[in-house]
Amino acid sequence: MNAPALSLSRRLRKSPFEARSHTGAKATSVYNHVVLPTAYVSLEDDYWHLREHVQIWDVACQVQVEVKGRDALKLVEFLTPRDLSAMLPGQCVYAPLLDERAGIVNDPIILCLAPDHFWLSISDSDVLLWVKGLALGAGFDVTVSDPDVFPLSLQGPKSEALLDRLIGEPVGDIRFFRFIETQIAGIPLIVARTGWSGQGGFELYLNEPSEGERLWDTIAAAGADLNLRPGCPNLIDRIETGLLSHGNDMTLYNNPIEAGLDRFFKLGKSADYLGREALEKIAQDGPAQRMVRVVVPGAPVANPRETYSMIVAESGTPGCMTSIAYSPRLHCNVGLGYVPSGNTRVGTAIEVAVAGTKRQGQIASQDWTTELEG
Amino acid sequence: MNAPALSLSRRLRKSPFEARSHTGAKATSVYNHVVLPTAYVSLEDDYWHLREHVQIWDVACQVQVEVKGRDALKLVEFLTPRDLSAMLPGQCVYAPLLDERAGIVNDPIILCLAPDHFWLSISDSDVLLWVKGLALGAGFDVTVSDPDVFPLSLQGPKSEALLDRLIGEPVGDIRFFRFIETQIAGIPLIVARTGWSGQGGFELYLNEPSEGERLWDTIAAAGADLNLRPGCPNLIDRIETGLLSHGNDMTLYNNPIEAGLDRFFKLGKSADYLGREALEKIAQDGPAQRMVRVVVPGAPVANPRETYSMIVAESGTPGCMTSIAYSPRLHCNVGLGYVPSGNTRVGTAIEVAVAGTKRQGQIASQDWTTELEG
Repeated sequence: MNAPALSLSRRLRKSPFEARSHTGAKATSVYNHVVLPTAYVSLEDDYWHLREHVQIWDVACQVQVEVKGRDALKLVEFLTPRDLSAMLPGQCVYAPLLDERAGIVNDPIILCLAPDHFWLSISDSDVLLWVKGLALGAGFDVTVSDPDVFPLSLQGPKSEALLDRLIGEPVGDIRFFRFIETQIAGIPLIVARTGWSGQGGFELYLNEPSEGERLWDTIAAAGADLNLRPGCPNLIDRIETGLLSHGNDMTLYNNPIEAGLDRFFKLGKSADYLGREALEKIAQDGPAQRMVRVVVPGAPVANPRETYSMIVAESGTPGCMTSIAYSPRLHCNVGLGYVPSGNTRVGTAIEVAVAGTKRQGQIASQDWTTELEG
Repeated sequence: MNAPALSLSRRLRKSPFEARSHTGAKATSVYNHVVLPTAYVSLEDDYWHLREHVQIWDVACQVQVEVKGRDALKLVEFLTPRDLSAMLPGQCVYAPLLDERAGIVNDPIILCLAPDHFWLSISDSDVLLWVKGLALGAGFDVTVSDPDVFPLSLQGPKSEALLDRLIGEPVGDIRFFRFIETQIAGIPLIVARTGWSGQGGFELYLNEPSEGERLWDTIAAAGADLNLRPGCPNLIDRIETGLLSHGNDMTLYNNPIEAGLDRFFKLGKSADYLGREALEKIAQDGPAQRMVRVVVPGAPVANPRETYSMIVAESGTPGCMTSIAYSPRLHCNVGLGYVPSGNTRVGTAIEVAVAGTKRQGQIASQDWTTELEG
């Protein structure tokens, strides 16, 4: 079957890089009302290239929600169980945003630009409306807006060498999850050592859309001998890295403890936040299910349109697979999914229902080994 | 250039009709995180068919936001300047939702299921987060949720005849913007005389996703001799009808007065609502610009990726074209856009900048005539 073409209109916000990034894209999706390329040469070829070289990604879809004003810190604290009280300008923090039941609304990187000025660099849900609604309802003294800021990402092991050339000074001093204000070819940018791959890299925040194509071209020219090419968040790499995708691996109906995001915060921060009561109850009772990594040997399994049903063999209890891809490096399928709590031991056999057939697999460690734990 | 394929994953919510509706779709978009077909045979062929026969549309993307509880009416009233105090169960109302600056957040059809139970059948923004945020922030006593309800639309002049057969009794008694609870082939449905075309029709709200394909097949079989075929909201038809698309013809940065939506409400309703002060100020001062219909003779103009710049010839003042399509019936391009207030007289000459060329046109009446008004 021929895949249908994507209709473009003003309803899908225009990326300032799309005249470059859409060329050669084999597949795309829509993310925060912006087109996101999802494959160029092929998922596997893109994966190997990302591991070895450097890629330029149009991630204009990582929309910024700006919170500014007297109550900015108070409001941003109210959105998440992560303690932001010691956050400094130039710092980035990964922070799940919760609703009143401790459901995950979104999982942005929060950038602190000044003590009363934050950007939430969001995943795929309209956080602008969420934050505005809360702020207006509760009377926080802030301005919440969506500035014309469009991220471009450089990912892969050669990204640091490339940025050194572009900025004209070593970027090695930028620590992980920190950002600097700098410029490339005279274009002012915020450059953060962050990004949605396991291969290391940077995200460049552009606030002058008219400079998008010149920025892209400048980077492409400087990276030619590093084998730079256009890329995009890669399904295989992100599963191997254990990066969760909001909407795929967690939704408003998952809590951060079952999703394993509780490693990013401690319960009991002093500032008030939405969902505290629900979250503390889940922590006390223990979550009903937990996110695990799973390997499934054999032929490639397609990523699910919904979830795949997943049974834990030793207990017969049901769970689900939320993401899966064939890893050409590990020579098996690597997946993420939920199993009932108490069934998370590495090596545990599972059975996944895929397209009418049953596939056997095992719960894996953080580095995808499956030797049975004691 | 080959248009890239759309990547499907769980992040794009599955329509219960997609096994049927995606077959034969030439183009699609993503709307509220759901795939929306945008063309089948061709825009023009779909248009003529819609005017003459009956089409079945997968509009699962018209997501419902459910508001239920003691403060449900108070909260829904708080969202819009439209007076809902006299709304009865079985009634539908088109109501722009405003933010504090009177910007348009969304423009749903609101369905009253009971005095304390409403559905907002939304356009393309996450109203669930907006309404939840406001309700939590301000302490409204309601439950806000996104039920598993998926609309299917029957549009076109033969839609009433088709529904008579399916329901087994005449549907002529359903008034415009009213709904009934009924069933087709034993599948319980809400059937409303609403829909996003100018040709008349119905929207069927299904809350049992597992019955989606059986419902589609039942309708397809019953409609075979009426020349039923799959369709979708049609760009030409919706512009000719003057239906505004949120994200295209109006955004959070437009107010309902300049967009011409003030014909759906009166200022000064008694219930409290967000944006009242800003809206009353705009009404008093007069809006800076107004939505108009425009015709552009000659060769087809492609619908804009962003807006097209549009100059009013007699004053030289700038406006913009937000949507345009070639009408094979009117033998010219029909468009929607904004011009400065005081420049809206039918017959006024305008100039549109399209792909580096200037195209001449005129402001048109509601029925697309352009004879200069006195």
